[in-house]
Amino acid sequence: MQKQQELYSGKAKTVYTTDDPDKLILQFRNDTSAFDGEKLAQLDRKGMVNNKFNAFIMQQLQQGGVATHFERLLSDEESVVKKLDMLPIECVVRNLSAGSLCRRLGVEEGQPLNPPIFEFFLKDDALHDPMINDYHILSFNWASVDEVETMKRLTFQVNDILKQLFLDADLLLVDYKLEFGRFDGELLLGDEFTPDGCRLWDATTRDKLDKDRFRQGLGGVVEAYEAVARRLGIELG
Amino acid sequence: MQKQQELYSGKAKTVYTTDDPDKLILQFRNDTSAFDGEKLAQLDRKGMVNNKFNAFIMQQLQQGGVATHFERLLSDEESVVKKLDMLPIECVVRNLSAGSLCRRLGVEEGQPLNPPIFEFFLKDDALHDPMINDYHILSFNWASVDEVETMKRLTFQVNDILKQLFLDADLLLVDYKLEFGRFDGELLLGDEFTPDGCRLWDATTRDKLDKDRFRQGLGGVVEAYEAVARRLGIELG
Ligand SMILES: Nc1ncnc2c1ncn2[C@@H]1O[C@H](COP(=O)(O)OP(=O)(O)O)[C@@H](O)[C@H]1O
Ligand SMILES: Nc1ncnc2c1ncn2[C@@H]1O[C@H](COP(=O)(O)OP(=O)(O)O)[C@@H](O)[C@H]1O
Ligand SMILES: [Mg+2]
Ligand SMILES: [Mg+2]
Repeated sequence: MQKQQELYSGKAKTVYTTDDPDKLILQFRNDTSAFDGEKLAQLDRKGMVNNKFNAFIMQQLQQGGVATHFERLLSDEESVVKKLDMLPIECVVRNLSAGSLCRRLGVEEGQPLNPPIFEFFLKDDALHDPMINDYHILSFNWASVDEVETMKRLTFQVNDILKQLFLDADLLLVDYKLEFGRFDGELLLGDEFTPDGCRLWDATTRDKLDKDRFRQGLGGVVEAYEAVARRLGIELG
Repeated sequence: MQKQQELYSGKAKTVYTTDDPDKLILQFRNDTSAFDGEKLAQLDRKGMVNNKFNAFIMQQLQQGGVATHFERLLSDEESVVKKLDMLPIECVVRNLSAGSLCRRLGVEEGQPLNPPIFEFFLKDDALHDPMINDYHILSFNWASVDEVETMKRLTFQVNDILKQLFLDADLLLVDYKLEFGRFDGELLLGDEFTPDGCRLWDATTRDKLDKDRFRQGLGGVVEAYEAVARRLGIELG
Protein backbone atom coordinates (compact mmCIF):
# COMPACT_ATOMS: atom_id res chain seq x y z
CA MET A 1 0.00 0.00 0.00
CA GLN A 2 1.60 3.21 -1.27
CA LYS A 3 0.56 6.43 0.53
CA GLN A 4 0.03 9.20 -2.04
CA GLN A 5 -1.23 12.69 -1.41
CA GLU A 6 -3.21 14.21 1.45
CA LEU A 7 -6.87 14.34 0.47
CA TYR A 8 -8.33 16.07 3.53
CA SER A 9 -7.20 16.99 6.99
CA GLY A 10 -10.04 17.22 9.52
CA LYS A 11 -10.15 18.06 13.19
CA ALA A 12 -8.69 14.73 14.35
CA LYS A 13 -7.71 12.65 11.33
CA THR A 14 -5.93 13.08 8.03
CA VAL A 15 -7.03 11.19 4.94
CA TYR A 16 -4.52 10.09 2.26
CA THR A 17 -5.04 8.64 -1.17
CA THR A 18 -3.17 5.46 -2.04
CA ASP A 19 -2.09 3.58 -5.16
CA ASP A 20 -5.44 1.76 -4.94
CA PRO A 21 -8.18 4.20 -6.09
CA ASP A 22 -10.70 2.38 -3.85
CA LYS A 23 -8.60 2.64 -0.68
CA LEU A 24 -7.59 5.46 1.63
CA ILE A 25 -5.27 5.69 4.59
CA LEU A 26 -6.78 7.25 7.71
CA GLN A 27 -4.23 8.75 10.06
CA PHE A 28 -5.45 9.30 13.61
CA ARG A 29 -3.70 12.39 14.98
CA ASN A 30 -3.20 13.53 18.58
CA ASP A 31 -5.22 16.69 17.83
CA THR A 32 -8.33 17.01 19.96
CA SER A 33 -11.04 19.61 19.53
CA ALA A 34 -14.32 20.50 21.17
CA PHE A 35 -17.01 23.17 20.93
CA ASP A 36 -16.71 23.50 17.13
CA GLY A 37 -12.94 23.81 17.30
CA GLU A 38 -12.93 26.50 20.01
CA LYS A 39 -11.04 24.29 22.47
CA LEU A 40 -7.97 22.58 21.00
CA ALA A 41 -5.17 20.42 22.36
CA GLN A 42 -2.55 17.85 21.45
CA LEU A 43 -2.98 14.75 23.58
CA ASP A 44 -0.02 12.36 23.61
CA ARG A 45 -0.73 8.81 22.42
CA LYS A 46 -4.36 9.64 21.46
CA GLY A 47 -3.78 8.99 17.74
CA MET A 48 -2.41 5.53 18.43
CA VAL A 49 -5.06 4.65 21.03
CA ASN A 50 -7.94 5.80 18.82
CA ASN A 51 -6.55 4.02 15.76
CA LYS A 52 -6.40 0.69 17.62
CA PHE A 53 -9.68 1.29 19.46
CA ASN A 54 -11.40 2.00 16.15
CA ALA A 55 -9.88 -1.06 14.48
CA PHE A 56 -11.16 -3.29 17.28
CA ILE A 57 -14.69 -1.86 17.24
CA MET A 58 -14.97 -1.88 13.45
CA GLN A 59 -13.97 -5.57 13.44
CA GLN A 60 -16.57 -6.34 16.11
CA LEU A 61 -19.23 -4.55 14.07
CA GLN A 62 -18.18 -6.33 10.89
CA GLN A 63 -18.53 -9.66 12.72
CA GLY A 64 -21.94 -8.51 13.95
CA GLY A 65 -23.07 -7.97 10.37
CA VAL A 66 -22.54 -4.21 9.97
CA ALA A 67 -20.62 -3.53 6.75
CA THR A 68 -17.83 -1.01 7.43
CA HIS A 69 -15.08 0.75 5.49
CA PHE A 70 -12.37 -0.77 7.72
CA GLU A 71 -9.76 -2.95 6.01
CA ARG A 72 -6.73 -3.26 8.31
CA LEU A 73 -4.30 -1.56 10.64
CA LEU A 74 -1.33 -0.15 8.74
CA SER A 75 0.78 1.36 11.55
CA ASP A 76 0.31 2.64 15.10
CA GLU A 77 -1.62 5.68 13.89
CA GLU A 78 -2.85 4.58 10.46
CA SER A 79 -5.49 2.29 9.04
CA VAL A 80 -6.47 1.32 5.51
CA VAL A 81 -10.14 1.90 4.70
CA LYS A 82 -12.37 1.76 1.65
CA LYS A 83 -12.77 5.14 -0.01
CA LEU A 84 -16.36 6.22 0.58
CA ASP A 85 -18.50 8.98 -0.84
CA MET A 86 -19.42 10.32 2.61
CA LEU A 87 -22.93 11.56 3.34
CA PRO A 88 -22.86 15.00 5.06
CA ILE A 89 -24.84 13.52 7.94
CA GLU A 90 -24.14 12.42 11.49
CA CYS A 91 -26.27 9.67 13.05
CA VAL A 92 -26.60 9.71 16.83
CA VAL A 93 -28.16 7.18 19.17
CA ARG A 94 -28.63 8.02 22.85
CA ASN A 95 -29.26 5.40 25.52
CA LEU A 96 -28.90 7.85 28.40
CA SER A 97 -29.36 11.63 28.38
CA ALA A 98 -26.17 13.69 28.17
CA GLY A 99 -24.57 16.60 26.36
CA SER A 100 -26.49 18.68 23.86
CA LEU A 101 -29.71 16.72 24.45
CA CYS A 102 -29.77 17.90 28.08
CA ARG A 103 -29.12 21.50 27.08
CA ARG A 104 -31.67 21.49 24.27
CA LEU A 105 -34.50 19.78 26.17
CA GLY A 106 -33.78 20.86 29.73
CA VAL A 107 -33.30 17.25 30.83
CA GLU A 108 -30.99 16.11 33.62
CA GLU A 109 -27.93 14.07 32.64
CA GLY A 110 -28.09 10.31 33.03
CA GLN A 111 -31.80 9.67 32.45
CA PRO A 112 -32.40 6.32 30.70
CA LEU A 113 -34.00 6.89 27.30
CA ASN A 114 -36.59 4.26 26.41
CA PRO A 115 -36.81 3.82 23.49
CA PRO A 116 -33.28 5.06 22.73
CA ILE A 117 -33.28 8.37 20.88
CA PHE A 118 -32.07 8.59 17.28
CA GLU A 119 -31.02 11.98 15.88
CA PHE A 120 -29.69 13.16 12.53
CA PHE A 121 -27.32 16.13 12.38
CA LEU A 122 -26.03 17.96 9.35
CA LYS A 123 -22.23 17.70 9.33
CA ASP A 124 -21.42 21.38 8.89
CA ASP A 125 -19.04 23.10 11.31
CA ALA A 126 -19.95 26.60 10.09
CA LEU A 127 -23.61 25.93 10.96
CA HIS A 128 -22.62 24.15 14.21
CA ASP A 129 -23.95 20.77 13.06
CA PRO A 130 -27.69 21.58 13.29
CA MET A 131 -30.16 18.83 14.07
CA ILE A 132 -32.13 17.74 10.99
CA ASN A 133 -34.73 15.09 10.21
CA ASP A 134 -35.71 12.75 7.38
CA TYR A 135 -37.58 15.51 5.54
CA HIS A 136 -34.59 17.90 5.46
CA ILE A 137 -32.42 15.07 4.14
CA LEU A 138 -34.86 14.23 1.35
CA SER A 139 -35.79 17.80 0.46
CA PHE A 140 -32.16 18.93 0.22
CA ASN A 141 -31.14 15.64 -1.41
CA TRP A 142 -28.46 14.78 1.16
CA ALA A 143 -29.44 11.09 0.93
CA SER A 144 -32.19 8.88 -0.55
CA VAL A 145 -35.22 7.42 1.24
CA ASP A 146 -33.48 4.03 1.26
CA GLU A 147 -30.29 5.52 2.66
CA VAL A 148 -32.21 7.27 5.44
CA GLU A 149 -33.75 3.93 6.43
CA THR A 150 -30.41 2.12 6.15
CA MET A 151 -28.64 4.70 8.33
CA LYS A 152 -31.28 4.26 11.04
CA ARG A 153 -31.24 0.48 10.82
CA LEU A 154 -27.45 0.19 10.92
CA THR A 155 -27.06 2.79 13.68
CA PHE A 156 -29.49 0.82 15.89
CA GLN A 157 -27.78 -2.46 14.92
CA VAL A 158 -24.51 -0.92 16.14
CA ASN A 159 -26.30 -0.15 19.41
CA ASP A 160 -27.36 -3.78 19.89
CA ILE A 161 -23.80 -4.98 19.32
CA LEU A 162 -21.89 -2.35 21.26
CA LYS A 163 -24.18 -1.81 24.26
CA GLN A 164 -23.59 -5.45 25.18
CA LEU A 165 -19.87 -5.38 24.32
CA PHE A 166 -19.31 -2.40 26.63
CA LEU A 167 -21.62 -3.70 29.34
CA ASP A 168 -19.56 -6.91 29.48
CA ALA A 169 -16.65 -4.61 30.40
CA ASP A 170 -18.79 -2.82 33.03
CA LEU A 171 -19.20 0.23 30.77
CA LEU A 172 -22.35 2.11 29.77
CA LEU A 173 -22.62 3.19 26.15
CA VAL A 174 -24.37 6.52 26.78
CA ASP A 175 -24.46 7.82 23.19
CA TYR A 176 -22.43 7.79 19.98
CA LYS A 177 -22.14 9.38 16.56
CA LEU A 178 -21.71 7.49 13.28
CA GLU A 179 -21.03 8.60 9.72
CA PHE A 180 -21.88 6.61 6.62
CA GLY A 181 -20.73 6.74 3.03
CA ARG A 182 -21.47 5.17 -0.34
CA PHE A 183 -19.27 2.44 -1.83
CA ASP A 184 -20.29 0.60 -4.98
CA GLY A 185 -23.96 1.52 -4.51
CA GLU A 186 -23.99 0.31 -0.91
CA LEU A 187 -23.95 2.28 2.34
CA LEU A 188 -21.03 1.42 4.63
CA LEU A 189 -20.17 2.62 8.12
CA GLY A 190 -17.25 5.02 7.74
CA ASP A 191 -15.21 7.41 9.84
CA GLU A 192 -14.46 6.12 13.35
CA PHE A 193 -15.84 4.69 16.55
CA THR A 194 -13.62 5.91 19.41
CA PRO A 195 -14.11 7.66 22.77
CA ASP A 196 -13.78 10.92 20.78
CA GLY A 197 -17.22 10.35 19.28
CA CYS A 198 -19.16 8.51 21.95
CA ARG A 199 -19.86 8.71 25.67
CA LEU A 200 -18.79 5.83 27.90
CA TRP A 201 -19.39 5.74 31.63
CA ASP A 202 -18.12 3.26 34.18
CA ALA A 203 -21.30 1.28 34.89
CA THR A 204 -20.54 1.15 38.63
CA THR A 205 -19.08 4.59 39.44
CA ARG A 206 -20.54 6.50 36.44
CA ASP A 207 -17.06 7.99 35.89
CA LYS A 208 -16.78 9.56 32.45
CA LEU A 209 -14.25 7.74 30.24
CA ASP A 210 -14.66 9.63 26.97
CA LYS A 211 -14.08 13.04 25.35
CA ASP A 212 -16.25 14.74 27.98
CA ARG A 213 -13.09 14.54 30.16
CA PHE A 214 -11.52 16.93 27.65
CA ARG A 215 -14.64 19.10 27.16
CA GLN A 216 -15.10 19.46 30.91
CA GLY A 217 -11.39 19.82 31.76
CA LEU A 218 -11.41 16.69 33.96
CA GLY A 219 -7.91 15.63 32.90
CA GLY A 220 -6.68 12.09 32.32
CA VAL A 221 -8.29 12.01 28.88
CA VAL A 222 -6.08 9.51 27.05
CA GLU A 223 -5.58 7.58 30.29
CA ALA A 224 -9.34 7.04 30.36
CA TYR A 225 -9.38 5.94 26.69
CA GLU A 226 -6.57 3.49 27.50
CA ALA A 227 -8.45 2.17 30.53
CA VAL A 228 -11.48 1.46 28.35
CA ALA A 229 -9.26 -0.20 25.72
CA ARG A 230 -7.70 -2.41 28.39
CA ARG A 231 -11.09 -3.46 29.72
CA LEU A 232 -12.13 -4.45 26.19
CA GLY A 233 -8.94 -6.44 25.72
CA ILE A 234 -7.56 -4.18 22.99
CA GLU A 235 -3.79 -4.56 22.42
CA LEU A 236 -2.22 -1.11 22.56
CA GLY A 237 1.41 -2.28 22.46
CA MET B 1 -72.73 29.66 26.82
CA GLN B 2 -71.66 31.11 30.18
CA LYS B 3 -68.05 32.39 30.41
CA GLN B 4 -66.54 31.32 33.75
CA GLN B 5 -62.99 31.81 34.93
CA GLU B 6 -59.77 32.47 33.05
CA LEU B 7 -57.91 29.20 32.59
CA TYR B 8 -54.76 30.44 30.87
CA SER B 9 -53.56 33.60 29.24
CA GLY B 10 -50.92 33.03 26.55
CA LYS B 11 -48.99 35.37 24.33
CA ALA B 12 -51.91 36.14 22.01
CA LYS B 13 -55.05 34.47 23.33
CA THR B 14 -56.86 33.97 26.62
CA VAL B 15 -58.69 30.75 27.38
CA TYR B 16 -61.85 30.72 29.58
CA THR B 17 -63.80 27.85 31.05
CA THR B 18 -67.55 27.78 30.45
CA ASP B 19 -70.59 26.18 32.02
CA ASP B 20 -69.99 23.24 29.65
CA PRO B 21 -67.00 21.26 30.99
CA ASP B 22 -66.18 20.14 27.42
CA LYS B 23 -66.09 23.67 25.97
CA LEU B 24 -63.79 26.64 26.27
CA ILE B 25 -63.94 30.19 25.02
CA LEU B 26 -60.84 31.36 23.13
CA GLN B 27 -60.40 35.13 23.15
CA PHE B 28 -58.07 36.46 20.45
CA ARG B 29 -56.31 39.52 21.86
CA ASN B 30 -54.53 42.38 20.06
CA ASP B 31 -51.26 41.39 21.78
CA THR B 32 -48.53 40.41 19.36
CA SER B 33 -45.18 38.91 20.27
CA ALA B 34 -42.09 37.68 18.48
CA PHE B 35 -38.63 36.35 19.32
CA ASP B 36 -39.84 34.44 22.41
CA GLY B 37 -41.71 37.45 23.73
CA GLU B 38 -38.78 39.88 23.33
CA LYS B 39 -40.69 42.07 20.86
CA LEU B 40 -44.20 42.98 21.98
CA ALA B 41 -46.96 45.23 20.65
CA GLN B 42 -50.69 45.88 20.70
CA LEU B 43 -52.04 45.85 17.17
CA ASP B 44 -55.49 47.38 16.75
CA ARG B 45 -58.17 45.05 15.30
CA LYS B 46 -55.81 42.04 15.28
CA GLY B 47 -57.88 40.07 17.81
CA MET B 48 -61.01 40.44 15.72
CA VAL B 49 -59.29 39.73 12.40
CA ASN B 50 -57.53 36.63 13.71
CA ASN B 51 -60.69 35.31 15.39
CA LYS B 52 -62.63 35.51 12.13
CA PHE B 53 -59.70 34.32 10.02
CA ASN B 54 -59.31 31.30 12.27
CA ALA B 55 -63.04 30.52 12.21
CA PHE B 56 -63.03 30.55 8.41
CA ILE B 57 -59.96 28.32 8.07
CA MET B 58 -61.11 25.87 10.74
CA GLN B 59 -64.43 25.48 8.92
CA GLN B 60 -62.63 24.88 5.62
CA LEU B 61 -60.47 22.23 7.27
CA GLN B 62 -63.48 20.60 8.92
CA GLN B 63 -65.16 20.40 5.48
CA GLY B 64 -61.93 18.93 4.11
CA GLY B 65 -62.09 16.13 6.67
CA VAL B 66 -59.71 17.43 9.35
CA ALA B 67 -61.38 17.19 12.77
CA THR B 68 -60.85 20.43 14.71
CA HIS B 69 -61.74 21.88 18.10
CA PHE B 70 -63.69 24.76 16.50
CA GLU B 71 -67.38 25.04 17.36
CA ARG B 72 -68.57 28.56 16.51
CA LEU B 73 -67.88 32.28 16.63
CA LEU B 74 -69.16 33.81 19.87
CA SER B 75 -68.27 37.50 19.41
CA ASP B 76 -65.86 39.63 17.39
CA GLU B 77 -62.88 38.40 19.40
CA GLU B 78 -64.17 35.13 20.86
CA SER B 79 -64.87 31.61 19.66
CA VAL B 80 -66.23 28.50 21.35
CA VAL B 81 -63.96 25.45 21.05
CA LYS B 82 -63.84 21.94 22.45
CA LYS B 83 -61.62 21.71 25.52
CA LEU B 84 -58.58 19.70 24.49
CA ASP B 85 -55.77 18.09 26.43
CA MET B 86 -53.08 19.85 24.38
CA LEU B 87 -49.90 18.01 23.37
CA PRO B 88 -46.79 20.13 24.15
CA ILE B 89 -45.80 19.89 20.50
CA GLU B 90 -45.82 22.18 17.49
CA CYS B 91 -46.15 20.68 14.00
CA VAL B 92 -44.66 22.66 11.14
CA VAL B 93 -44.87 22.11 7.40
CA ARG B 94 -42.73 24.18 5.04
CA ASN B 95 -43.43 24.48 1.32
CA LEU B 96 -40.83 27.20 0.77
CA SER B 97 -37.74 27.98 2.85
CA ALA B 98 -38.08 30.89 5.30
CA GLY B 99 -37.44 31.92 8.88
CA SER B 100 -35.63 29.61 11.30
CA LEU B 101 -35.06 26.96 8.62
CA CYS B 102 -32.92 29.41 6.64
CA ARG B 103 -30.92 30.39 9.70
CA ARG B 104 -30.43 26.81 10.89
CA LEU B 105 -29.46 25.30 7.54
CA GLY B 106 -27.86 28.26 5.80
CA VAL B 107 -30.46 28.17 3.03
CA GLU B 108 -31.70 31.20 1.09
CA GLU B 109 -35.29 32.31 1.65
CA GLY B 110 -37.89 31.28 -0.90
CA GLN B 111 -36.44 27.96 -2.11
CA PRO B 112 -39.20 25.48 -3.00
CA LEU B 113 -39.01 22.43 -0.72
CA ASN B 114 -39.80 19.16 -2.49
CA PRO B 115 -40.99 17.15 -0.68
CA PRO B 116 -42.33 19.73 1.81
CA ILE B 117 -40.47 19.64 5.12
CA PHE B 118 -42.21 18.49 8.29
CA GLU B 119 -40.76 19.48 11.68
CA PHE B 120 -41.76 18.85 15.28
CA PHE B 121 -40.92 21.45 17.94
CA LEU B 122 -41.31 21.18 21.68
CA LYS B 123 -43.68 23.93 22.83
CA ASP B 124 -41.53 25.40 25.61
CA ASP B 125 -40.78 29.14 25.63
CA ALA B 126 -38.05 28.81 28.28
CA LEU B 127 -36.17 26.36 26.02
CA HIS B 128 -36.96 28.48 22.92
CA ASP B 129 -39.13 25.77 21.33
CA PRO B 130 -36.33 23.37 20.37
CA MET B 131 -36.73 21.12 17.33
CA ILE B 132 -37.46 17.51 18.28
CA ASN B 133 -38.22 14.30 16.41
CA ASP B 134 -40.38 11.18 16.78
CA TYR B 135 -37.87 9.54 19.12
CA HIS B 136 -37.80 12.45 21.59
CA ILE B 137 -41.60 12.44 21.64
CA LEU B 138 -41.80 8.71 22.37
CA SER B 139 -38.90 8.58 24.80
CA PHE B 140 -40.20 11.50 26.88
CA ASN B 141 -43.78 10.30 26.48
CA TRP B 142 -45.07 13.56 24.99
CA ALA B 143 -47.36 11.57 22.66
CA SER B 144 -47.94 7.99 21.51
CA VAL B 145 -46.73 6.32 18.30
CA ASP B 146 -50.25 6.61 16.89
CA GLU B 147 -50.48 10.27 17.82
CA VAL B 148 -47.13 11.00 16.15
CA GLU B 149 -48.42 9.41 12.94
CA THR B 150 -51.77 11.21 13.22
CA MET B 151 -50.11 14.60 13.73
CA LYS B 152 -48.02 14.10 10.59
CA ARG B 153 -50.95 12.84 8.54
CA LEU B 154 -53.29 15.66 9.58
CA THR B 155 -50.63 18.36 9.21
CA PHE B 156 -49.99 17.25 5.62
CA GLN B 157 -53.73 16.97 4.98
CA VAL B 158 -54.04 20.60 6.09
CA ASN B 159 -51.33 21.42 3.54
CA ASP B 160 -53.29 19.80 0.70
CA ILE B 161 -56.40 21.76 1.60
CA LEU B 162 -54.87 25.15 2.38
CA LYS B 163 -52.15 25.35 -0.28
CA GLN B 164 -54.91 25.23 -2.89
CA LEU B 165 -57.25 27.54 -0.97
CA PHE B 166 -54.56 30.21 -0.71
CA LEU B 167 -53.31 29.69 -4.26
CA ASP B 168 -56.84 30.34 -5.53
CA ALA B 169 -56.48 33.77 -3.88
CA ASP B 170 -53.02 34.26 -5.48
CA LEU B 171 -51.27 33.54 -2.17
CA LEU B 172 -48.39 31.17 -1.41
CA LEU B 173 -48.65 29.15 1.81
CA VAL B 174 -44.95 29.23 2.70
CA ASP B 175 -45.14 27.45 6.08
CA TYR B 176 -47.41 27.05 9.11
CA LYS B 177 -47.53 25.75 12.65
CA LEU B 178 -50.29 23.57 14.09
CA GLU B 179 -51.05 22.32 17.60
CA PHE B 180 -53.11 19.23 18.41
CA GLY B 181 -54.88 18.02 21.52
CA ARG B 182 -56.76 15.01 22.81
CA PHE B 183 -60.56 14.94 23.05
CA ASP B 184 -62.41 11.74 23.92
CA GLY B 185 -59.49 9.55 22.89
CA GLU B 186 -59.16 11.31 19.52
CA LEU B 187 -56.62 13.85 18.31
CA LEU B 188 -58.16 17.13 17.11
CA LEU B 189 -56.57 20.19 15.54
CA GLY B 190 -56.55 22.88 18.24
CA ASP B 191 -55.22 26.38 18.80
CA GLU B 192 -55.43 28.61 15.70
CA PHE B 193 -54.63 29.03 12.05
CA THR B 194 -54.02 32.74 11.42
CA PRO B 195 -51.30 34.90 9.83
CA ASP B 196 -49.71 34.96 13.31
CA GLY B 197 -48.68 31.33 12.89
CA CYS B 198 -48.06 30.89 9.20
CA ARG B 199 -46.26 32.63 6.34
CA LEU B 200 -48.27 33.87 3.37
CA TRP B 201 -46.73 35.60 0.38
CA ASP B 202 -48.46 37.29 -2.52
CA ALA B 203 -47.89 34.74 -5.29
CA THR B 204 -47.18 37.44 -7.84
CA THR B 205 -45.16 40.06 -5.94
CA ARG B 206 -43.91 37.79 -3.09
CA ASP B 207 -44.94 40.53 -0.62
CA LYS B 208 -45.09 39.18 2.93
CA LEU B 209 -48.63 39.23 4.33
CA ASP B 210 -48.08 37.58 7.70
CA LYS B 211 -46.40 38.08 11.10
CA ASP B 212 -43.01 38.53 9.42
CA ARG B 213 -44.21 42.11 8.79
CA PHE B 214 -44.17 42.53 12.57
CA ARG B 215 -40.93 40.56 13.15
CA GLN B 216 -39.13 42.53 10.47
CA GLY B 217 -40.69 45.93 11.29
CA LEU B 218 -42.27 46.26 7.84
CA GLY B 219 -45.43 47.94 9.19
CA GLY B 220 -49.00 47.43 7.96
CA VAL B 221 -49.29 44.18 9.87
CA VAL B 222 -53.03 43.99 10.50
CA GLU B 223 -53.68 45.69 7.15
CA ALA B 224 -51.91 42.75 5.49
CA TYR B 225 -53.95 40.22 7.53
CA GLU B 226 -57.10 42.06 6.44
CA ALA B 227 -56.01 42.06 2.81
CA VAL B 228 -55.56 38.28 2.95
CA ALA B 229 -58.95 37.88 4.66
CA ARG B 230 -60.59 39.96 1.93
CA ARG B 231 -59.01 37.88 -0.81
CA LEU B 232 -60.34 34.72 0.85
CA GLY B 233 -63.80 36.25 1.11
CA ILE B 234 -63.82 36.33 4.92
CA GLU B 235 -66.45 38.69 6.40
CA LEU B 236 -64.72 41.00 8.86
CA GLY B 237 -67.71 43.31 9.46
N1 LIG C 1 -13.81 5.83 4.38
C1 LIG C 1 -13.82 7.14 4.18
N2 LIG C 1 -13.78 7.66 2.93
C2 LIG C 1 -13.78 9.00 2.74
N3 LIG C 1 -13.83 9.91 3.73
C3 LIG C 1 -13.89 9.45 4.99
C4 LIG C 1 -13.88 8.05 5.28
N4 LIG C 1 -13.97 7.90 6.63
C5 LIG C 1 -14.02 9.13 7.15
N5 LIG C 1 -13.97 10.08 6.18
C6 LIG C 1 -14.01 11.54 6.35
O1 LIG C 1 -12.71 11.94 6.71
C7 LIG C 1 -12.75 12.95 7.71
C8 LIG C 1 -12.08 12.43 8.96
O2 LIG C 1 -11.38 13.39 9.60
P1 LIG C 1 -11.92 14.17 10.87
O3 LIG C 1 -10.71 14.71 11.53
O4 LIG C 1 -12.88 13.35 11.67
O5 LIG C 1 -12.72 15.31 10.08
P2 LIG C 1 -13.87 16.34 10.51
O6 LIG C 1 -13.19 17.44 11.24
O7 LIG C 1 -14.43 16.75 9.16
O8 LIG C 1 -14.86 15.54 11.32
C9 LIG C 1 -14.22 13.24 7.98
O9 LIG C 1 -14.65 14.37 7.24
C10 LIG C 1 -14.91 11.98 7.48
O10 LIG C 1 -16.24 12.23 7.01
N1 LIG D 1 -59.07 23.70 22.35
C1 LIG D 1 -58.14 23.98 23.27
N2 LIG D 1 -58.20 23.44 24.51
C2 LIG D 1 -57.24 23.72 25.43
N3 LIG D 1 -56.22 24.55 25.21
C3 LIG D 1 -56.10 25.11 23.99
C4 LIG D 1 -57.05 24.86 22.96
N4 LIG D 1 -56.66 25.54 21.86
C5 LIG D 1 -55.52 26.19 22.18
N5 LIG D 1 -55.17 25.94 23.46
C6 LIG D 1 -54.00 26.45 24.18
O1 LIG D 1 -54.31 27.78 24.60
C7 LIG D 1 -53.18 28.62 24.46
C8 LIG D 1 -53.54 29.70 23.45
O2 LIG D 1 -53.01 30.91 23.77
P1 LIG D 1 -51.68 31.48 23.11
O3 LIG D 1 -51.74 32.94 23.35
O4 LIG D 1 -51.51 30.98 21.71
O5 LIG D 1 -50.65 30.76 24.10
P2 LIG D 1 -49.08 30.47 23.98
O6 LIG D 1 -48.39 31.75 24.32
O7 LIG D 1 -48.90 29.38 25.03
O8 LIG D 1 -48.83 29.97 22.57
C9 LIG D 1 -52.05 27.78 23.93
O9 LIG D 1 -51.20 27.36 24.97
C10 LIG D 1 -52.78 26.59 23.32
O10 LIG D 1 -51.98 25.39 23.35
MG1 LIG E 1 -14.72 13.87 12.55
MG1 LIG F 1 -49.74 30.28 20.75
